[in-house]
Amino acid sequence: MRIGMGYDIHRLVEHRPLILAGVTIPSERGEDAHSDGDVLLHALIDALLGAIAQGDIGTHYPPSDPKWKNVSSRKLLRETLERVTAAGFKPGNIDCTVILEKPKLGPFRESIRASLQEDLQIPLDCISFKAKTKEKQDATGKDLAIEALATVLLLPL
Amino acid sequence: MRIGMGYDIHRLVEHRPLILAGVTIPSERGEDAHSDGDVLLHALIDALLGAIAQGDIGTHYPPSDPKWKNVSSRKLLRETLERVTAAGFKPGNIDCTVILEKPKLGPFRESIRASLQEDLQIPLDCISFKAKTKEKQDATGKDLAIEALATVLLLPL
Amino acid sequence: MRIGMGYDIHRLVEHRPLILAGVTIPSERGEDAHSDGDVLLHALIDALLGAIAQGDIGTHYPPSDPKWKNVSSRKLLRETLERVTAAGFKPGNIDCTVILEKPKLGPFRESIRASLQEDLQIPLDCISFKAKTKEKQDATGKDLAIEALATVLLLPL
Ligand SMILES: [Mg+2]
Ligand SMILES: [Mg+2]
Ligand SMILES: [Mg+2]
Repeated sequence: MRIGMGYDIHRLVEHRPLILAGVTIPSERGEDAHSDGDVLLHALIDALLGAIAQGDIGTHYPPSDPKWKNVSSRKLLRETLERVTAAGFKPGNIDCTVILEKPKLGPFRESIRASLQEDLQIPLDCISFKAKTKEKQDATGKDLAIEALATVLLLPL
Repeated sequence: MRIGMGYDIHRLVEHRPLILAGVTIPSERGEDAHSDGDVLLHALIDALLGAIAQGDIGTHYPPSDPKWKNVSSRKLLRETLERVTAAGFKPGNIDCTVILEKPKLGPFRESIRASLQEDLQIPLDCISFKAKTKEKQDATGKDLAIEALATVLLLPL
Repeated sequence: MRIGMGYDIHRLVEHRPLILAGVTIPSERGEDAHSDGDVLLHALIDALLGAIAQGDIGTHYPPSDPKWKNVSSRKLLRETLERVTAAGFKPGNIDCTVILEKPKLGPFRESIRASLQEDLQIPLDCISFKAKTKEKQDATGKDLAIEALATVLLLPL
């Protein structure tokens, strides 16, 4: 059994979609990034890589490499899950938190969980998505950034 | 077995008590909130809900609902523990961290743990409370906010 | 089985070394602290103490005590591991994240993991070190601070 935790932050900018676990959220601003900027999947990928101690998302997918420009983070998640399998583990449960001032993310919870389930292939009651605001404090609270935290429990195959 | 993680932040304002796990801490300022603003219990409730993948505190106790105005978060924690039981789990251990510039929280550790134990009904050596400052950085470091992180391990009943 | 999570932050200042898990990283600035300021080990020590519910690093090593001035945090980690053993546990795996704007920490990953392994005495594939930036946001993003998150899973001896 293994645990891992991931953290990510992206700046929010105009003319970019806001993507969480592959789901596009209607929003005036989205994540700035070379990839699709999917802050939730980036935190989750880091949690999975951390649990198997195989570096971090920057190791495997350096933003300087044009190969990853605008790539879907779901593809990176699926590759990461192959690494988890190869290491002899499978996800037991995952718990994710996105911190964002607006829009409200509650209405998108079930779409996000369904998308995660497609990639993770574990029961829905083992996939948690939570949303918080930063109460107008700091960059995220001033609507300039979005943050995500993810924790995972891995079980032996 | 399941894991969950919760995060919460509240602004600190005058004329409000500073409440942590139901314990009132002598302080010039307290948590701004519609509820009692118990940032520690909010993070813990979110960790528990995350571990059973049943939404977040905002789902179950929307701040817009006058029903939760000034409600004790201990009541919300006990309701959440009933959900955990209904899902077939019990808390194994919990580890909580509160980030606050002042006052020092160390002297209140044992009161906070005792209060948590009353609600959680698990051995005291499975209930951790830790305190940090933010070294004068960002909103919490400037004494404008208080943050909490909680992690939980759930065991099958 | 127990889980724990630790968080730490230090201001970055000139004329101080940048130390992570005992490894000195070439950098114009380092952690401000009474001790060696090893933000990574401080987060890890707090995660370990949290998992056994034995207070926090400030409880055991108060910064006001001259005894801990410039002490190596590796010594504090080894003392903490003795507490973990005395409580009947051993580390299963650990996952650490350091958030720092510059320099890039990837090149130091293996030195950091090797140093952690010397103290933890667990397989290398159970020791994870990850690095993130804060995308120029907030104190850490403005190069004024360094943050660390650590999560640990403890197994019974
Ligand atoms: Mg990212
Ligand atoms: Mg709250
Ligand atoms: Mg420290």
